[in-house]
Amino acid sequence: MSQPVIALFTDFGVSDPYVGQMHARLVAEAPQARIVDLHHYAPAFSPGPAGLLLEALVPHLTPGSVVVGVVDPGVGTARGSLALATDEHWFVGPDNGLFASVLEAREGRCFRLREPEGDGLSVSFHGRDLFGPAAAALARGDRMVLGEEVAEPVRAEARRDAVLYVDHYGNLMTGLVPPEDGGARLRVEGRNIPFARTFGEVGPGELFWYRNSLDRVEIAAREGSAAKRLGAGTGTAVAWIGGV
Amino acid sequence: MSQPVIALFTDFGVSDPYVGQMHARLVAEAPQARIVDLHHYAPAFSPGPAGLLLEALVPHLTPGSVVVGVVDPGVGTARGSLALATDEHWFVGPDNGLFASVLEAREGRCFRLREPEGDGLSVSFHGRDLFGPAAAALARGDRMVLGEEVAEPVRAEARRDAVLYVDHYGNLMTGLVPPEDGGARLRVEGRNIPFARTFGEVGPGELFWYRNSLDRVEIAAREGSAAKRLGAGTGTAVAWIGGV
Amino acid sequence: MSQPVIALFTDFGVSDPYVGQMHARLVAEAPQARIVDLHHYAPAFSPGPAGLLLEALVPHLTPGSVVVGVVDPGVGTARGSLALATDEHWFVGPDNGLFASVLEAREGRCFRLREPEGDGLSVSFHGRDLFGPAAAALARGDRMVLGEEVAEPVRAEARRDAVLYVDHYGNLMTGLVPPEDGGARLRVEGRNIPFARTFGEVGPGELFWYRNSLDRVEIAAREGSAAKRLGAGTGTAVAWIGGV
Repeated sequence: MSQPVIALFTDFGVSDPYVGQMHARLVAEAPQARIVDLHHYAPAFSPGPAGLLLEALVPHLTPGSVVVGVVDPGVGTARGSLALATDEHWFVGPDNGLFASVLEAREGRCFRLREPEGDGLSVSFHGRDLFGPAAAALARGDRMVLGEEVAEPVRAEARRDAVLYVDHYGNLMTGLVPPEDGGARLRVEGRNIPFARTFGEVGPGELFWYRNSLDRVEIAAREGSAAKRLGAGTGTAVAWIGGV
Repeated sequence: MSQPVIALFTDFGVSDPYVGQMHARLVAEAPQARIVDLHHYAPAFSPGPAGLLLEALVPHLTPGSVVVGVVDPGVGTARGSLALATDEHWFVGPDNGLFASVLEAREGRCFRLREPEGDGLSVSFHGRDLFGPAAAALARGDRMVLGEEVAEPVRAEARRDAVLYVDHYGNLMTGLVPPEDGGARLRVEGRNIPFARTFGEVGPGELFWYRNSLDRVEIAAREGSAAKRLGAGTGTAVAWIGGV
Repeated sequence: MSQPVIALFTDFGVSDPYVGQMHARLVAEAPQARIVDLHHYAPAFSPGPAGLLLEALVPHLTPGSVVVGVVDPGVGTARGSLALATDEHWFVGPDNGLFASVLEAREGRCFRLREPEGDGLSVSFHGRDLFGPAAAALARGDRMVLGEEVAEPVRAEARRDAVLYVDHYGNLMTGLVPPEDGGARLRVEGRNIPFARTFGEVGPGELFWYRNSLDRVEIAAREGSAAKRLGAGTGTAVAWIGGV
């Protein structure tokens, strides 16, 4: 791989100086790597739902990426670290279920990370001090950061039939994979939501669900916010009417 | 061009995973290109005003940039695509008037884009699936993505005498080019707004207009928000008093 | 330095087109440099507190960085410019006290910048027109942008015993360096705040202070917002109980 790619997937947001420090460190430790800010508003403190969102993004990663995933409510406790190797990518982060959905969908091998020696490891920012440097090492082709193999990585609760993410338009992304034949109806907060292929097929303000660009079920309102219309948010349950 | 530059101008915001997916794709398809996030809060769903803002930014692009412009309320409908070649830059995006102001101000030739074959084109994210890859191709020097020439690209309504953008300080950027002799007065929401060269020339809280760093008329309040003071926002009309 | 690094530290935010224009310019003028967005929500209009935050970030810069620091309420007035050379980094920005804390903590030499000739200097955006290009020159190894040496750079008021920054979790970062023996108590808004090593050591909702990843005192609430709990924000005073 002539130009390795490190992709960041975190719940750090982009207003605080955390992502910037990760970049500064990655540039120092993997000068040849490109860094892609894939997403920094993963469901906060929620490794399960965040993992479902990450899993949906995998087909859209640059081939051969090293993903640093940091949704890490247990930082500073005894939770372990994880490096997951799949056919195409590496995933580096906490062993708290964040990568469980990725691993369910494909073959992979898991390893602990060797922790840096000395006092280089803060208690609250392993993205900068542990996962980032490990990803940089893997991007350089250095496997010395890998420790013992992990047979049973931690699982996390992750419901596909719920809202995983609300985007800034107010669209509600779920973890559901749409049925091949399309037209089933969905029930959300007591409302029946019909299918439409795209925004152009419904009237202004109308609620519908469609197959989004990650091949998942997404609920939207044309020229409006489905989140506001439905009073729905992250975690809101959704259900097929009459099954799929 | 030893290091091509791809500049992104969208209304995607920076909190959702959309820009990250564009980067992941561009890095894959144009590994030698630099990617510049020029602006991701263009006036949403408003190709006309967004185009005026883009036009003001053109002199500040890296020379030789390929601009991906995505303000695309018609994605998934029959609206066409556009690649606009000017003397210095490429502009790639929807044919909905977004590039009309750029084209009014300089010579250029327009082309349709060839759509990718197979099922690679989502109905809702042409920035990732069509415009991004086309820009990557142009950045690599590959002209095969260009289809037939477009003689009459779509126009969009775009008033210069209105607020195009409110920045996070509350400054109101308009599309007006200031008169050379400077001192005309402006009328906004029933208030007369005097000219000042810079913030240091007025008292704290005072409203004024000045020639901003894009050579456009901008209304500001020293150490305050002109937007709040005037109750103004995107689309608010502005007028010269007595003409210019 | 085979790959120079330019790090940006500003109060521009990431929603406006300002940072994008800086990138476009830097890519043009220092094509070999990597650009790191270190932080764009420095305390607005407050060079003193912003400087304390920057000083805490210095150990986490990529070695050999050229930092462009722009917190510049006096742009367009007669305030001078500054390039500060320390053993390891360059700092380029306004001479308004922004770099005073960096300079207090280490040796350094200060210079004025030569201003660009012609009409290339806007009155309101020296980050793009003056500091960015000067940083690009330094990153290229070009010292011609340096003017006369500055013996007495401007100082700015900067209290360490105050909240410098509130992150998006509601954690309150101060400028205080924690005592080596750890356990002192802090008083904030009339409340006594005990020490804990990490979030895992306190109960849900509990307020505590800890040594954060920048080696500074930070006040937090487990799974909650310390800012909301305390009604505290940027500038709120903090004090050790009984001294340290």
